[in-house]
Amino acid sequence: MSDHYDRTSPVTGESGDPMSEPRFLEIATFMRAPLAKSLEGLDVALVGVPYDGAVTNRPGTRHGPREIRNQSTNVRRIHPLTRTDPFELCRVADVGDVIFETLYDIETAHQNIEDFIARLVEAQVVPLTAGGDHSISYPILRAVARERPVALIQIDAHTDTWDTWKGSRVHHGAPFRRAVEDGLIDPRRTIQIGVRGPQNITDGWDYSEQTGMRVLFMHDVAAMGIEAVIAEARQVVGDGPVYLTFDIDGIDPAFAPGTGTPEIGGLSTLEAQRILWGLDGLDFVGADVVEVSPPFDSAGITALAGASIMYELLNLLAEAIRSRRNGT
Amino acid sequence: MSDHYDRTSPVTGESGDPMSEPRFLEIATFMRAPLAKSLEGLDVALVGVPYDGAVTNRPGTRHGPREIRNQSTNVRRIHPLTRTDPFELCRVADVGDVIFETLYDIETAHQNIEDFIARLVEAQVVPLTAGGDHSISYPILRAVARERPVALIQIDAHTDTWDTWKGSRVHHGAPFRRAVEDGLIDPRRTIQIGVRGPQNITDGWDYSEQTGMRVLFMHDVAAMGIEAVIAEARQVVGDGPVYLTFDIDGIDPAFAPGTGTPEIGGLSTLEAQRILWGLDGLDFVGADVVEVSPPFDSAGITALAGASIMYELLNLLAEAIRSRRNGT
Amino acid sequence: MSDHYDRTSPVTGESGDPMSEPRFLEIATFMRAPLAKSLEGLDVALVGVPYDGAVTNRPGTRHGPREIRNQSTNVRRIHPLTRTDPFELCRVADVGDVIFETLYDIETAHQNIEDFIARLVEAQVVPLTAGGDHSISYPILRAVARERPVALIQIDAHTDTWDTWKGSRVHHGAPFRRAVEDGLIDPRRTIQIGVRGPQNITDGWDYSEQTGMRVLFMHDVAAMGIEAVIAEARQVVGDGPVYLTFDIDGIDPAFAPGTGTPEIGGLSTLEAQRILWGLDGLDFVGADVVEVSPPFDSAGITALAGASIMYELLNLLAEAIRSRRNGT
Amino acid sequence: MSDHYDRTSPVTGESGDPMSEPRFLEIATFMRAPLAKSLEGLDVALVGVPYDGAVTNRPGTRHGPREIRNQSTNVRRIHPLTRTDPFELCRVADVGDVIFETLYDIETAHQNIEDFIARLVEAQVVPLTAGGDHSISYPILRAVARERPVALIQIDAHTDTWDTWKGSRVHHGAPFRRAVEDGLIDPRRTIQIGVRGPQNITDGWDYSEQTGMRVLFMHDVAAMGIEAVIAEARQVVGDGPVYLTFDIDGIDPAFAPGTGTPEIGGLSTLEAQRILWGLDGLDFVGADVVEVSPPFDSAGITALAGASIMYELLNLLAEAIRSRRNGT
Amino acid sequence: MSDHYDRTSPVTGESGDPMSEPRFLEIATFMRAPLAKSLEGLDVALVGVPYDGAVTNRPGTRHGPREIRNQSTNVRRIHPLTRTDPFELCRVADVGDVIFETLYDIETAHQNIEDFIARLVEAQVVPLTAGGDHSISYPILRAVARERPVALIQIDAHTDTWDTWKGSRVHHGAPFRRAVEDGLIDPRRTIQIGVRGPQNITDGWDYSEQTGMRVLFMHDVAAMGIEAVIAEARQVVGDGPVYLTFDIDGIDPAFAPGTGTPEIGGLSTLEAQRILWGLDGLDFVGADVVEVSPPFDSAGITALAGASIMYELLNLLAEAIRSRRNGT
Amino acid sequence: MSDHYDRTSPVTGESGDPMSEPRFLEIATFMRAPLAKSLEGLDVALVGVPYDGAVTNRPGTRHGPREIRNQSTNVRRIHPLTRTDPFELCRVADVGDVIFETLYDIETAHQNIEDFIARLVEAQVVPLTAGGDHSISYPILRAVARERPVALIQIDAHTDTWDTWKGSRVHHGAPFRRAVEDGLIDPRRTIQIGVRGPQNITDGWDYSEQTGMRVLFMHDVAAMGIEAVIAEARQVVGDGPVYLTFDIDGIDPAFAPGTGTPEIGGLSTLEAQRILWGLDGLDFVGADVVEVSPPFDSAGITALAGASIMYELLNLLAEAIRSRRNGT
Repeated sequence: MSDHYDRTSPVTGESGDPMSEPRFLEIATFMRAPLAKSLEGLDVALVGVPYDGAVTNRPGTRHGPREIRNQSTNVRRIHPLTRTDPFELCRVADVGDVIFETLYDIETAHQNIEDFIARLVEAQVVPLTAGGDHSISYPILRAVARERPVALIQIDAHTDTWDTWKGSRVHHGAPFRRAVEDGLIDPRRTIQIGVRGPQNITDGWDYSEQTGMRVLFMHDVAAMGIEAVIAEARQVVGDGPVYLTFDIDGIDPAFAPGTGTPEIGGLSTLEAQRILWGLDGLDFVGADVVEVSPPFDSAGITALAGASIMYELLNLLAEAIRSRRNGT
Repeated sequence: MSDHYDRTSPVTGESGDPMSEPRFLEIATFMRAPLAKSLEGLDVALVGVPYDGAVTNRPGTRHGPREIRNQSTNVRRIHPLTRTDPFELCRVADVGDVIFETLYDIETAHQNIEDFIARLVEAQVVPLTAGGDHSISYPILRAVARERPVALIQIDAHTDTWDTWKGSRVHHGAPFRRAVEDGLIDPRRTIQIGVRGPQNITDGWDYSEQTGMRVLFMHDVAAMGIEAVIAEARQVVGDGPVYLTFDIDGIDPAFAPGTGTPEIGGLSTLEAQRILWGLDGLDFVGADVVEVSPPFDSAGITALAGASIMYELLNLLAEAIRSRRNGT
Repeated sequence: MSDHYDRTSPVTGESGDPMSEPRFLEIATFMRAPLAKSLEGLDVALVGVPYDGAVTNRPGTRHGPREIRNQSTNVRRIHPLTRTDPFELCRVADVGDVIFETLYDIETAHQNIEDFIARLVEAQVVPLTAGGDHSISYPILRAVARERPVALIQIDAHTDTWDTWKGSRVHHGAPFRRAVEDGLIDPRRTIQIGVRGPQNITDGWDYSEQTGMRVLFMHDVAAMGIEAVIAEARQVVGDGPVYLTFDIDGIDPAFAPGTGTPEIGGLSTLEAQRILWGLDGLDFVGADVVEVSPPFDSAGITALAGASIMYELLNLLAEAIRSRRNGT
Repeated sequence: MSDHYDRTSPVTGESGDPMSEPRFLEIATFMRAPLAKSLEGLDVALVGVPYDGAVTNRPGTRHGPREIRNQSTNVRRIHPLTRTDPFELCRVADVGDVIFETLYDIETAHQNIEDFIARLVEAQVVPLTAGGDHSISYPILRAVARERPVALIQIDAHTDTWDTWKGSRVHHGAPFRRAVEDGLIDPRRTIQIGVRGPQNITDGWDYSEQTGMRVLFMHDVAAMGIEAVIAEARQVVGDGPVYLTFDIDGIDPAFAPGTGTPEIGGLSTLEAQRILWGLDGLDFVGADVVEVSPPFDSAGITALAGASIMYELLNLLAEAIRSRRNGT
Repeated sequence: MSDHYDRTSPVTGESGDPMSEPRFLEIATFMRAPLAKSLEGLDVALVGVPYDGAVTNRPGTRHGPREIRNQSTNVRRIHPLTRTDPFELCRVADVGDVIFETLYDIETAHQNIEDFIARLVEAQVVPLTAGGDHSISYPILRAVARERPVALIQIDAHTDTWDTWKGSRVHHGAPFRRAVEDGLIDPRRTIQIGVRGPQNITDGWDYSEQTGMRVLFMHDVAAMGIEAVIAEARQVVGDGPVYLTFDIDGIDPAFAPGTGTPEIGGLSTLEAQRILWGLDGLDFVGADVVEVSPPFDSAGITALAGASIMYELLNLLAEAIRSRRNGT
Repeated sequence: MSDHYDRTSPVTGESGDPMSEPRFLEIATFMRAPLAKSLEGLDVALVGVPYDGAVTNRPGTRHGPREIRNQSTNVRRIHPLTRTDPFELCRVADVGDVIFETLYDIETAHQNIEDFIARLVEAQVVPLTAGGDHSISYPILRAVARERPVALIQIDAHTDTWDTWKGSRVHHGAPFRRAVEDGLIDPRRTIQIGVRGPQNITDGWDYSEQTGMRVLFMHDVAAMGIEAVIAEARQVVGDGPVYLTFDIDGIDPAFAPGTGTPEIGGLSTLEAQRILWGLDGLDFVGADVVEVSPPFDSAGITALAGASIMYELLNLLAEAIRSRRNGT
């Protein structure tokens, strides 16, 4: 499979895998994967969704995909814990960014996103998306969960189940309320991990809890420990198809300052990784990393965290694809 | 008039002018002017318009007004060239920010801006606005030029007379095309100074030139010198009411990196000041400083430049108010 | 009580609670609380003390209050753990900054601080202060503990019980030695949490321990765990009035780089929050957050931490006020 | 020619020119030009040379090509002065980066560069290179000037004609001494503009002057003015083939802080642009922009300057190609 | 011994210990220790090795020693846990930097390092080195372990036991493979702590494990806890001479962003300190802190961490020297 | 004379001139000059005065000397315009920093400065000082002008001839008023260049003008041109002894953002250099560079500018020393 990853120089005619070259070299695609020319034979599509038109506070996540691409050149192949190589398990490519008809109308932009992801789903390519603000998970779910609702694992400082605000019902604090309403996610198979920070009203927290979502606030996480969080997550989502959405603000601002609505007292990157390591074997059908805002970053560590989490998600997706392929 | 500027401490009962205190002290209003409680007796309103929903590239100017307020605490009263004190000539106050019904629809946001500024105009208070992206000049002009078209002096790297793009006809590259179409500005009494940088099409440049605007590209400015620029500007705008719009990207990125569409080869701050100094005595009816984007700034110098330019504009407005008051 | 928090626009005449608006909007007061016009009916005063004249190393905390005000616009009302709203429990306002007669004499500046806080105490308004260097806790205590000594909970990398240095006995490493000498704090009801870092002499550590303070070094905290720290703190301070002083350098430089004397190996923000959560129900009579130095910050995370800790302290104060009001 | 620049989405099947999309979108190639698949039909190759193994002071230019690619997405097509579109005049593509056999031996790395550029020259594709440290101009010239010496226009704070230092004769302060020795450039048709800053010995200055190069120090430039600089440059290089090398440190550190050996008192970006504008019509056969060091940059302005200068050079190259094509 | 640390002003003739002065004062030597004039009577030499010619990714550690010197002025004498003063136990001095014959040949640079350290070893001065990239540990070990192999405690995100890459067998990912081959370290008395992050091949991990090194990945550390890590380390290294190498990337990027190959999910500084505290009493014969890259740092926290870790290592070395002196 | 500059390694016994080594190497003294052991034979003393206790706005210049030392390692020997080497003309050394008895009393600190500089003057060593805030020029002048008043050339955004403020008559806006009152400078032989920015009162401007100082505001400089500025300066100061004080805020914030009271519209570094170049041959008896505040700097360019200006001043001093030595 390795020739899938090779690039032939138009100048020297030599070919090789960019991921084996020094990390500062060459065009920055996601993890230096090839830029897809078609969807044929592809297993996982790395997608950029540079959209931040639905934020309620600090903007900048439109610059997230490019900077995640840049920092993702620090990522390599084989996982230190599992010793598996997701690039060997699957054919992975960067399929570019969603192109928007308009930047100025959320619904239209969301439609562009849904259409783009739907094409992947139709071609049986699993989407792994880098955002963009969290509103984008809603149109992604409209594409991914078209056939049946999915379970949801959400790592996030906020439940994002709030209602209409300042004229929009699909702003970046609302996607999972809309997803429940549309039957895209099953709230009783949904877990939200890392929630924290004060709110003006409790409506979003209430909505999550009343619809049956399991909400693990950071004070819960601190009390339970990471192992119990993992057990709880596995128990909540069960056996069916699962979508994972990772809002980078689930991680503490010391580890991920470059985001729109930072809240102190979050997960460390190691805690986040440990949670993800604990989710192996679930039937993942897609995933995203959102809310990386490079203009507010420092030393590139948020984009690096985003890229590294994306690599962890790729491992989960690749494992799930292998399981489905093997009928296990 | 000095008691207009005094603030009484709710704790000590003592009162004094915050502008005389150390610059790191107290709440940051624009130039530490009082926070207006009413418009009565007010001559100049300092207005924040934290809106960046119409940008085509890097966002962040929603954070402009607050950071300009912060840096404007470095500003003081008496101008070194004219030795006049605009705070003595006029009653100046910070009237707060435009409050938006929605963040997600440009037209509605623009209507909020127009309504806000119209109230000032009706109360015969001259608006001096800190943006926000350049689209805001369009609704401001709809309020300021309601009765008759005004002349326009625009310092800017771009003509901002481009047409519909990505679904919006009122994005931040279009305000002065819309203002011409609506009869808000007289293109033959309009001058655009500092234009530069490549474009994909020439439509905006063409529109400016074909409607009769005087466009001074940076290569023209370099060839003419600042004195000739001033003479040209005065000759173009003539005697009637004039609005001045200052896009911070008119200044070079070395002096103002924190902006959405930086272009190298711009004006220095001293050249910009010299141009403004040369415009004294014109009949200014309003002004704005736009496109300061703090997330892209470095060492706060763009916000400081924005605040300092705002002070220069205050001098021009105060002088015009005095002239109108004196019937000269 | 909600009209306490409303602001009426001088332009539109409409009124509303700024805390409900987008966080980048409007003048930055502490937590967007109203700027007090009098102390009448007020329960908690948010105070800025922009003074750094007593530092021994890096300066810059004079810029702390303004930047904490800026970042505090990210704070909202209802606490995720307790589900209470301190702004409903109490009337809270920003009373502005202490105005200094001189910047160049610590004793005079301290007298200005003491006088300012004393007015609040006399009016039965509880002070919640944002510093400034740690020396300011000494004059605050002179006002707060005028009637009787108070217990002290101090989160800090240093004991700040050192003696005269480079000509001053009231520099920012000495406040709690002076407070003991003046009978303002009861050392046997004092706990210092998070102490670490090498020293040239042991005099300060010795003073704390010899006067009966409980000093929890970070190696102690690591060994005990957070729950034991809380139990110890509650046991030490007991039932009487308690003052809480939070030096931001108690938190690790990864979470709070913007401070004057950073020491590696500190608390995470979550650990600090957990300690504060564990202190509910104590009889708090005042609190401060000090040593936030914006010029040394990165990505604003230290000021955000300072603002967020200030919100936690507001919860503790509001709860104590309710208890005292209810006679419980 | 426009379909040359189109990219077809592997997902939607739609095609379009990335340069017309929002600037934060999609993979960052140089100026969002297509990533070449072959050299066929190509006129100008945009080349990255991420090599900084030959620096004498601060490293980091290995990260230059990627960050210039990133900032070059701000560049568009039509030049404001000439109103020509170099992308219409020529077929332009990003051919990727030189791949290095070793990072640890300058001579081998230089050989890799020479071989890469030689392939372009053989295919009659003009190289426009983004460095990398200035040593790379030497192997580029070995490829470009294989047939005959070329004239050289060098904008630079240093003459880069110094001799062996710390064990290397091809470090980044030596390329043009080596190029003279090898007969690659004609020193009497060489001009060095912007030289400044103290030196430990005068050997490099002496070498330039003694071999007949025209060295314009910044004190000369300040005394002569830009128009005279242009005239001098045109007179020195005359009619034959010319190579242009632009060391970003020719520009002042206020405009370009991100470089290895900054020297105050340099050119502004506008002065640099004006010089380049004055060089139109010369017979350019290649060009480079070197010494952009992103780790030392602030707010991305150095990479933006590098990308914008690269666009100016593209205009000069495109014009020269048109002239040669037209036999004029 | 205190006069060892005094400096006499050439101006006033007064003498005193710079470490007792404000931390922003005077020349920045390591920990403000005296700049040695000879090795006579010296116990510990603080050495700078500003070399980054062997990196595979981001450069910049050549600037490490100077910035560590700068931040080390925040360090003081007495350890808060042990209450001992390493400057009293030993005579400590800054001996300056290794001077390099060439910057462009790794082997020669390594020889310069070996020769320099060998002189110290011959004079029975224990070296405590600040790097520089990790390749420098190899020539240091060639000097320190000349007589017999040493045990190795390595805190690091990578095993650095990889083989030849891009033309070098002594790049910064290879030093401990070379050290094993040369018999400088005993792999069965070697422990590597904090390893993490994906790799393209498993060769380095395999080499470590196959030669008998104990590799504690971060997933192991998280599972075991710090106390077990300490026990394991003590058990592995046993009683003989031990060298400690601390790659700053062993610490998480939130705590140490300024490094060449950051990997998320690392140790906190407190965890690193706790490990070092647990190693007291071992027979240390030298130590280094490497891979601090100031150009990639933010707010100086990486250099501060480097300096603070260096202080911890000084304590371990001083204790070992005392033990050897006392024959215990 | 070159052995004056050599340093012998305590380790290798080899000696050499640190200024010839790579610029990132070794201890950062000013311009890598030797750290003086006595004043014997010394011509110029490079002095650090890390004092910022007298500022009225942003602090941080206490960190100036160390960061100027750091950036001054970029400076080398021979001047590109004059081709002279000040290190050959004179014996130059770093004599360390003024040590302060107290940080908290301006008068005492000033006395420490005066005493320190007086020792140099007594030993006939010319002081070249790096500050520190501008208040330090007053005690320096008390030492330098003890015998007779000196002429003053001041490059500065402010006249610094203001009166008592916030309790101090010797704050950093007052030194030259105090110096006139004490007869230390002759106001009729004083020129202030680069003044700009609004003020609350005109008292300082008035004082300068009324005592006969020549004040060149930036609007004057822009109107006159640099050549006329030089002529005016030479004419004002005449033949007698001259002191030069260079406040870095005389330079524009784009070139020098790291300062306490930045004002837009200042000199470029090239303009500042050109002014200094024009002052050769005057009878300089001392000089200083002040108000470099590293915490507010970006990319180190302010400290680099400070170091580079210091080098220019060294040239002026060395030339004056040579003239006096030669009796010309």
